[in-house]
Amino acid sequence: MSSQFGHLFRISTWGESHGGEVGVVVDGCPPQLELSEADIQRDLDRRRPGQSEIVTPRDEADHCRIVSGVFEGRTLGTPIAVSVVNKDARPDSYREMEHAFRPSHADYTYQAKYGVRNWQGGGRSSARETIGRVAASAIGKKVLGSLCPGLEVIAYVRSIQHLQADIDTDTVRFEEVESNIVRCPDSAMAERMIEHIKSVRSDGDSVGGVVECVIRGVPPGLGEPVFDRLEADLGKGMLSLPATKGFEVGSGFAGTTLRGSEHNDIFYMDDTRVRTRSNRSGGVQGGISNGENIVFRVAFKPTATIFHPQETVSPDGKSVVLKARGRHDACVLPRAVPMVEAMAVLVLTDHVLRQRAQNGGFNA
Amino acid sequence: MSSQFGHLFRISTWGESHGGEVGVVVDGCPPQLELSEADIQRDLDRRRPGQSEIVTPRDEADHCRIVSGVFEGRTLGTPIAVSVVNKDARPDSYREMEHAFRPSHADYTYQAKYGVRNWQGGGRSSARETIGRVAASAIGKKVLGSLCPGLEVIAYVRSIQHLQADIDTDTVRFEEVESNIVRCPDSAMAERMIEHIKSVRSDGDSVGGVVECVIRGVPPGLGEPVFDRLEADLGKGMLSLPATKGFEVGSGFAGTTLRGSEHNDIFYMDDTRVRTRSNRSGGVQGGISNGENIVFRVAFKPTATIFHPQETVSPDGKSVVLKARGRHDACVLPRAVPMVEAMAVLVLTDHVLRQRAQNGGFNA
Amino acid sequence: MSSQFGHLFRISTWGESHGGEVGVVVDGCPPQLELSEADIQRDLDRRRPGQSEIVTPRDEADHCRIVSGVFEGRTLGTPIAVSVVNKDARPDSYREMEHAFRPSHADYTYQAKYGVRNWQGGGRSSARETIGRVAASAIGKKVLGSLCPGLEVIAYVRSIQHLQADIDTDTVRFEEVESNIVRCPDSAMAERMIEHIKSVRSDGDSVGGVVECVIRGVPPGLGEPVFDRLEADLGKGMLSLPATKGFEVGSGFAGTTLRGSEHNDIFYMDDTRVRTRSNRSGGVQGGISNGENIVFRVAFKPTATIFHPQETVSPDGKSVVLKARGRHDACVLPRAVPMVEAMAVLVLTDHVLRQRAQNGGFNA
Amino acid sequence: MSSQFGHLFRISTWGESHGGEVGVVVDGCPPQLELSEADIQRDLDRRRPGQSEIVTPRDEADHCRIVSGVFEGRTLGTPIAVSVVNKDARPDSYREMEHAFRPSHADYTYQAKYGVRNWQGGGRSSARETIGRVAASAIGKKVLGSLCPGLEVIAYVRSIQHLQADIDTDTVRFEEVESNIVRCPDSAMAERMIEHIKSVRSDGDSVGGVVECVIRGVPPGLGEPVFDRLEADLGKGMLSLPATKGFEVGSGFAGTTLRGSEHNDIFYMDDTRVRTRSNRSGGVQGGISNGENIVFRVAFKPTATIFHPQETVSPDGKSVVLKARGRHDACVLPRAVPMVEAMAVLVLTDHVLRQRAQNGGFNA
Repeated sequence: MSSQFGHLFRISTWGESHGGEVGVVVDGCPPQLELSEADIQRDLDRRRPGQSEIVTPRDEADHCRIVSGVFEGRTLGTPIAVSVVNKDARPDSYREMEHAFRPSHADYTYQAKYGVRNWQGGGRSSARETIGRVAASAIGKKVLGSLCPGLEVIAYVRSIQHLQADIDTDTVRFEEVESNIVRCPDSAMAERMIEHIKSVRSDGDSVGGVVECVIRGVPPGLGEPVFDRLEADLGKGMLSLPATKGFEVGSGFAGTTLRGSEHNDIFYMDDTRVRTRSNRSGGVQGGISNGENIVFRVAFKPTATIFHPQETVSPDGKSVVLKARGRHDACVLPRAVPMVEAMAVLVLTDHVLRQRAQNGGFNA
Repeated sequence: MSSQFGHLFRISTWGESHGGEVGVVVDGCPPQLELSEADIQRDLDRRRPGQSEIVTPRDEADHCRIVSGVFEGRTLGTPIAVSVVNKDARPDSYREMEHAFRPSHADYTYQAKYGVRNWQGGGRSSARETIGRVAASAIGKKVLGSLCPGLEVIAYVRSIQHLQADIDTDTVRFEEVESNIVRCPDSAMAERMIEHIKSVRSDGDSVGGVVECVIRGVPPGLGEPVFDRLEADLGKGMLSLPATKGFEVGSGFAGTTLRGSEHNDIFYMDDTRVRTRSNRSGGVQGGISNGENIVFRVAFKPTATIFHPQETVSPDGKSVVLKARGRHDACVLPRAVPMVEAMAVLVLTDHVLRQRAQNGGFNA
Repeated sequence: MSSQFGHLFRISTWGESHGGEVGVVVDGCPPQLELSEADIQRDLDRRRPGQSEIVTPRDEADHCRIVSGVFEGRTLGTPIAVSVVNKDARPDSYREMEHAFRPSHADYTYQAKYGVRNWQGGGRSSARETIGRVAASAIGKKVLGSLCPGLEVIAYVRSIQHLQADIDTDTVRFEEVESNIVRCPDSAMAERMIEHIKSVRSDGDSVGGVVECVIRGVPPGLGEPVFDRLEADLGKGMLSLPATKGFEVGSGFAGTTLRGSEHNDIFYMDDTRVRTRSNRSGGVQGGISNGENIVFRVAFKPTATIFHPQETVSPDGKSVVLKARGRHDACVLPRAVPMVEAMAVLVLTDHVLRQRAQNGGFNA
Repeated sequence: MSSQFGHLFRISTWGESHGGEVGVVVDGCPPQLELSEADIQRDLDRRRPGQSEIVTPRDEADHCRIVSGVFEGRTLGTPIAVSVVNKDARPDSYREMEHAFRPSHADYTYQAKYGVRNWQGGGRSSARETIGRVAASAIGKKVLGSLCPGLEVIAYVRSIQHLQADIDTDTVRFEEVESNIVRCPDSAMAERMIEHIKSVRSDGDSVGGVVECVIRGVPPGLGEPVFDRLEADLGKGMLSLPATKGFEVGSGFAGTTLRGSEHNDIFYMDDTRVRTRSNRSGGVQGGISNGENIVFRVAFKPTATIFHPQETVSPDGKSVVLKARGRHDACVLPRAVPMVEAMAVLVLTDHVLRQRAQNGGFNA
């Protein structure tokens, strides 16, 4: 279904941008996990606008409430509903959207699909919808913490437009990612990225980039053959984020220029553990984790909302010129980092429960 | 579930490589569509090995039987089961796989997940599993032909290792794709690709590449906001194919180097129809088709099976050297073309039925 | 999933009894339907406690809020979230439940399943959970009103303990059901039922009974062969209501005492319409509606909460005596009537959308 | 979906009656379970026609083939496909069905739904479709044997028309059920039932009855709150069998005539185990098993095919008289017994895997 994700750890998000309130219902969460609003708030704060000088100054305070499924600080096993009220909604900033389809936004396609749309800020296509996902992933992290204790998910900005960072996936740490406002752990490049985003913003323009994510400590055996391959579900999760245009795992598109003899990952025994000497597979073989680091990258296009006048059309078929007002990100990448982590956590949590259902845990 | 795909047009594939028989059950197909085994066989023949000098010489005749769901030449609305017997299975060619995990194959991960595996040829991770998908897509094409008459799905080889073809997505025709054995409609480049594959094969090595796919005649409104975005479902479908490492739509990874003012697709009225002057969105905005051509690319790694000796380990943790025998593709790309088309057709068919369910057809 | 119902018109309910707030998310609703909070409130008011002298005096005001999916009075096609805050929660009335498993309640089984439970009023097993279902069904009615204009769902109390009403399913009207507080359209019997419930209540005891439901104006073709037969989905929906012990359709259990020659419904032509002279099938044949009235019955056991002292055990395995306090229904039947209607509406709405998806509407 | 059942142990059945071949695909089965065709054949033989003098003399040999998912005698964790060819199909026996809707059959409703039907023997509505379910349940039994070792499912004929057997659910044994051809463990009543069925058959008429099922050794905690309550899923499974008209659990419809003080099941400690002194709940409270025996009953109507001339209509709207030929059961009950067991096993297997997924096994 459109607004549901996951087979066993299943989330349902709801809410329109600027509709006042958004939220999520998480069904299938194991019981007896400690969970507080603070656990969720921590992740929401990384996602929200207004947290630094290079993201949109909208101040969506995004205070979450757990409204069901938790009792005396522990999960009950029943649906966990989380709600977030938008205290800073300004629907009138969007009034011009009623009469113009914003280029490269979802205004036209929603109208074409449903014959009706909420023109106040993008409706379900807004980045605001991801609040529910991030909240759900905070719960997913509790499940992973319980069932895969060593597992860690770290995403970061790998590139902004042409600026490419140099990052070691084996050693990069969360604290390095959070050490600067662009969330790029290569600190020299981070400074250049920040300057670049400021410059683009002052032009009224926008830029995109690539978020990379590494998952370490994954037990072998996660993912399923055929359709629900781990990389297929990760790919779907990432491509369901707003503004994404591509996904690649391990060697990715660059790997297509190698020969098999250069690309294959040779197995060896590391004491009693089967390991590979290289990791062009990106931690997944035949759809199933092999215990090496899972590494993938996600392409985010430049933000569609820019402050230049743009030609477009109105719902009644007239040519119009649109000049955006309001508060928008010139670059979504820093805020995309926690969204990428969130989707990775949701995919992993679901597959950990699936593995437990069919195989009783991990065989290797 | 691992072996199911689609929400309304749902397929279940089954069968191991070299297990003798593979097949598919299609649930949810509309009734009263004309369907014969010949309709399915045509697509299976494009997928099968042994069809040209650059693909594996295995002769899997792959004759399909429709065993349910069709009566007097028309679909009944009930599950359509299709079965294909492998007349050329030679499980003994794989006996060395019992005692060695093939590098960059799924041998180890299946063992790690399930504690057991069919070592005869890759089990469910084999390209042979895609027979069921291709058969199901032949049925999906009937649905699309009935509900979206102008829609066409054309995939082709865009690159082999470093060799890049030049192809116009607006005009490329199926006949051009099928005019050469590498399935690249740029005929000059196709010859170079064929020579390259032959040369790599004679080295006992393998190469990968990129398949591009264009879908023309898509009505606006296909796809869903949030999780089941059209590009997310296409991405999942493609990344569920064996040997894939990446997916991108429209401007893709390259689009991350543009500014918003360069990337946005400007709307205009083409008579009564809303259109865009460029198509960096790749035909999808906010997860929903906008009526422009859908264009995406899929990265296929070089085939893992090569004929060089490779170090690896055995299931009981010993170091061993493996030298593959048997009949294998040095380059999977020509045969991947119909697989990519098949997954695209399955995604579209499912979304066309979903659109009809919720919206009664197409509003635009 | 535990808290989801429906394949295309899918609802997710959440919230614990006495947890303060309950609600529902409806995914897959068609767009452009007029919907207001008043539409939902009307049905909630029929379900809520405190509405008459024979139901529990708890005053759960149950004011609903639509928090997403509706814009300017019309559905958007996106998830519709509805929330209801409990203003009259008195969790302390339940403190003795912390230390005693109430007989024939879900206290013990929740503890056995999850190792934890919300002991304040039954958690998810409470009738309060059905608020979300009733709210969702108010939305489902809008869909049915749009796609099956003549369809009407009427439930009523058929029996209370030994008191059996005599009701004509062809002619019974909603107004007759609502004309008395026990919701039995046989007004003479209704008076006896009311007296009986009052008498049982004054004994501190409880009674059960049977709710019957008739659905008129059903187009032929609704329901699916095999697993998702219309009666199977209706049966599941009804048996998912608290306190239900049985379901039967058409001739039901009594039909097992007839011979085939007595039981078969003979077809005849009523002008151009195929009809049956009797309706022992209850409007469903082979899992699919045949256009006759759908008639089914649901058995509700006597309410488990009684005001007699009862022996039971505590979570730590001690024998204890429990005497309930608080405000409880001596007979759930009058309030079960709108719940039965709600589940019937949800099943029908889902199947109407499924029929439209696969068959484009109705063939007959 | 119409032809799928189960969330984690998911089966897809396919095949038309008299279409030559029927089968099932089981997705989600745990690996490493011993499984042979003989395991499946044993259950199929109990279901098939021709096994005794009181069931239809059709000789559907029903030899099963496992065509995937098993390797060297053990399940692989991948989809298990099972196929059964009908060697005794005689489609011409059904030619008159092309031109007449059989009363109380699915002929008319299939035509109304799909605008097309396979008139050769009932298509998907035939009892022949249940072959796939019984085959899948033989696999489910292996899962239950591994994860719930003491669990046993025993169904039997409780009544034929007015003839009611007297059976103790605590002690009834499988061997007693199989000791006579009507599958009623009350041997005196079984003889009367057999005589009655013979007499009805010689009249060209048919009878129905009630199958009762007891499940012993169920761990507490199976089933989910709200929609996927254990009794709701059992009810759906049973009502999805051909010819069923009702389902009740525990005290059932008769329980509606008791007061709460008579109906409640009092808890006590049996050593360290929580038990109930009576079992009017039928082993399920709040949708979740409480460890007592699960007991339910299923109503089967008299077989619709009788050998009297019956008035009916033709697909082109003419009045016609139909007199059935062919080989049919005068009473489906003896063959329904293994079908009821099969659906119970499928529901339990799915819920055992769901319990393991969310709760890691059993807490109590």
